[in-house]
Amino acid sequence: MSAYTIKAGSLFDRLRAGAEPHWSAYTRHAFVAGLGDGSLPEAAFRHYLQQDFIFLKHFARAYALAVYKSDTLEDMRASAGVMDALLDHEMGLHIKYCAEWGISEADLEALDEDPACMAYTRYVLERGMAGDLLDLKAALAPCVVGYGEIAARLVADPDTKTQGNPYMPWIEMYSGSEYIDLAVGTAEEMDALWRRYGNDVRAPRLQQTFTEATRLEVGFWQMGLDALTA
Amino acid sequence: MSAYTIKAGSLFDRLRAGAEPHWSAYTRHAFVAGLGDGSLPEAAFRHYLQQDFIFLKHFARAYALAVYKSDTLEDMRASAGVMDALLDHEMGLHIKYCAEWGISEADLEALDEDPACMAYTRYVLERGMAGDLLDLKAALAPCVVGYGEIAARLVADPDTKTQGNPYMPWIEMYSGSEYIDLAVGTAEEMDALWRRYGNDVRAPRLQQTFTEATRLEVGFWQMGLDALTA
Amino acid sequence: MSAYTIKAGSLFDRLRAGAEPHWSAYTRHAFVAGLGDGSLPEAAFRHYLQQDFIFLKHFARAYALAVYKSDTLEDMRASAGVMDALLDHEMGLHIKYCAEWGISEADLEALDEDPACMAYTRYVLERGMAGDLLDLKAALAPCVVGYGEIAARLVADPDTKTQGNPYMPWIEMYSGSEYIDLAVGTAEEMDALWRRYGNDVRAPRLQQTFTEATRLEVGFWQMGLDALTA
Amino acid sequence: MSAYTIKAGSLFDRLRAGAEPHWSAYTRHAFVAGLGDGSLPEAAFRHYLQQDFIFLKHFARAYALAVYKSDTLEDMRASAGVMDALLDHEMGLHIKYCAEWGISEADLEALDEDPACMAYTRYVLERGMAGDLLDLKAALAPCVVGYGEIAARLVADPDTKTQGNPYMPWIEMYSGSEYIDLAVGTAEEMDALWRRYGNDVRAPRLQQTFTEATRLEVGFWQMGLDALTA
Repeated sequence: MSAYTIKAGSLFDRLRAGAEPHWSAYTRHAFVAGLGDGSLPEAAFRHYLQQDFIFLKHFARAYALAVYKSDTLEDMRASAGVMDALLDHEMGLHIKYCAEWGISEADLEALDEDPACMAYTRYVLERGMAGDLLDLKAALAPCVVGYGEIAARLVADPDTKTQGNPYMPWIEMYSGSEYIDLAVGTAEEMDALWRRYGNDVRAPRLQQTFTEATRLEVGFWQMGLDALTA
Repeated sequence: MSAYTIKAGSLFDRLRAGAEPHWSAYTRHAFVAGLGDGSLPEAAFRHYLQQDFIFLKHFARAYALAVYKSDTLEDMRASAGVMDALLDHEMGLHIKYCAEWGISEADLEALDEDPACMAYTRYVLERGMAGDLLDLKAALAPCVVGYGEIAARLVADPDTKTQGNPYMPWIEMYSGSEYIDLAVGTAEEMDALWRRYGNDVRAPRLQQTFTEATRLEVGFWQMGLDALTA
Repeated sequence: MSAYTIKAGSLFDRLRAGAEPHWSAYTRHAFVAGLGDGSLPEAAFRHYLQQDFIFLKHFARAYALAVYKSDTLEDMRASAGVMDALLDHEMGLHIKYCAEWGISEADLEALDEDPACMAYTRYVLERGMAGDLLDLKAALAPCVVGYGEIAARLVADPDTKTQGNPYMPWIEMYSGSEYIDLAVGTAEEMDALWRRYGNDVRAPRLQQTFTEATRLEVGFWQMGLDALTA
Repeated sequence: MSAYTIKAGSLFDRLRAGAEPHWSAYTRHAFVAGLGDGSLPEAAFRHYLQQDFIFLKHFARAYALAVYKSDTLEDMRASAGVMDALLDHEMGLHIKYCAEWGISEADLEALDEDPACMAYTRYVLERGMAGDLLDLKAALAPCVVGYGEIAARLVADPDTKTQGNPYMPWIEMYSGSEYIDLAVGTAEEMDALWRRYGNDVRAPRLQQTFTEATRLEVGFWQMGLDALTA
């Protein structure tokens, strides 16, 4: 079985440490706690799910951009694989999952995009276009790896409510071996990209991109809770 | 003297009407009312000013992108002119203006970017990169033209406090003939771009871009007020 | 069985007519005639095959760019499908095909890119980035549709040498129903894109893009012949 | 007086050495020799001048792209300055210069672009979009710095025909202190960019970009000579 483990001292490990206290604010957000103990109001989850549909579309575009930005066939194929997984698999799952929550595909297509979703997705796409493949992957990593970290912790946490928790399917999807492999593989890929594109002078700017993206993840969870009072 | 007049039935006029009620929410925001009667708390204006510095930098990048996207020398020169005005003139004014408000250039460079600023600037840059020159200018227009509209209305409004209003320099700058010429010229340019790139099928998507950008302007004003309670 | 048929009066049909005499220079180039009667010197074909490997890599990037540029999930999936076909299927076929011609994968990776290949691939990528999805597809179409047209004509031509012609596998691949479906589908997609993005004022510029790409295809065949005297 | 001097061991110096024998083929091309001794047929120069007009337009777009790609205001202003010099000054000079050679501005606008011009300009724009600011400047450098090197050598060469040589204005423009300052400053800027973005693993790819751009410069001179036999 796949385990979520990030190598100590790896680039991802350093970026994550450098993004504190935002990383903890993201991975231990009240929204996340509510997923674990099942106390999250359904309206918050429903708003999150809807916006996540738009989010996934732009993330698929970001991986397409990564293919465009790649120098080698191997890099192209790696990003094309994630893009296909998003377009074919994850968005399909999402549509099915939304249907179970009473949100139709037509609803999804007609959504107004929340500014929190705009901020995050467009920041990733813009950083990725302005910079190189490493900048793009640094902007994507808090989401891709962080979801694995969150779900792996929840599934291992004895306080997580596993019976009668409407959010267990979410926790199981992102703690499943397929997703954990993607998360861990993404963290490992960043070390490889660092060797090829990194240098110490640009480290602060890379940290800034990672930290901003982490803050925007905090905003994305908060968007779910804010929907309750909107 | 230059007057702020938008031709009835012009593309800008139609987009503005189509963006209601967001257009009114933007141009008649409480932040704007506070500029007019001088009641806006200084802390709100200071936060706005700081973020506007980051905003202008990305707007200069957006006009650089417009040069890249141009098909003709005339288009290139038009966008290069605005880009230069932003980089040389407006950012210089901004730095000077911030200094009067006790914000040093070093403060400006060290700022954390507000998510409301990120959302707007990155949306503009991303729409502009993904689409054509018309998409880019439609995303820029609510800001460029709207500021002229706001300032022109305030300066003509008998209720505007002209004596002892710390925000009169802001109102005067954006209602001045130099800025109004830019605003009106930008609205006119959109008709020319529509003739060259527009078609009725893409009108809804153009409206969406304009409306989203307008909503993000509402968020930018609100960001100033929210700073008071943060 | 799939037939290569372009609807009279369709956008592709009009662009093709407007690209004359370059379209005929491309589709009836001496290189093409040499494929049909088997008289093409093998060194010319080998140089073409090698450069076509680089070409396909950049074409896969161009379809990734099309995913980034898409407004709808349907558009994203259509371009993702071609991108995958290029990366997974066509480049694999190409590597296998090159091996039969004594060109190893290591040889392919170590190639110097011919200026004719650079000109075409970079022109497509740049037009696609600067313009919208219609500009990008107009730059891609002479290749994607034209290869189907060439191969369909050769396979139907009684003068084509079908026995002992080392180029029959090439002719069969591009006249096969899978490829013809792609070519015809690409031409049809252009009408749909025209309805969504086209207008009469931009028609001359679209024609220019299509015609330039056609001229660059002529240059790509010529590159193969020029290799004989280099 | 400004002198063309490249610091030994600088990045530009290393890239130039690594681009041999193409660098010598470019800077000592028969076209260049013909400029020096005045023997270049006028038709060759005229074709070059016309294509150079298109070239400058795309180079201005490349510097606009550099503004978009910049992380700091200082970088933005540096590239904006070159962009303005190209759009306002150099293209104006070019139009005037072309007029002296009997080429009107209308002729310039109606030109068909030579594949050699396409290959070079689109390669620069594509490398710059796919990579970072260092990649973009590495693609621009062979032109910007190389023209200074060529003109400085010609003006210092006792064999250069200074009286009655129709090409002396060209030599004087590019060996003038204003241009030499730009060329030397561009080489120096590359060292600064290397410190910020470079690393040893990416050095071969940067060399490849510089070398390809140098080969495309050879093609641009050759294009002038080939016009004689076209």
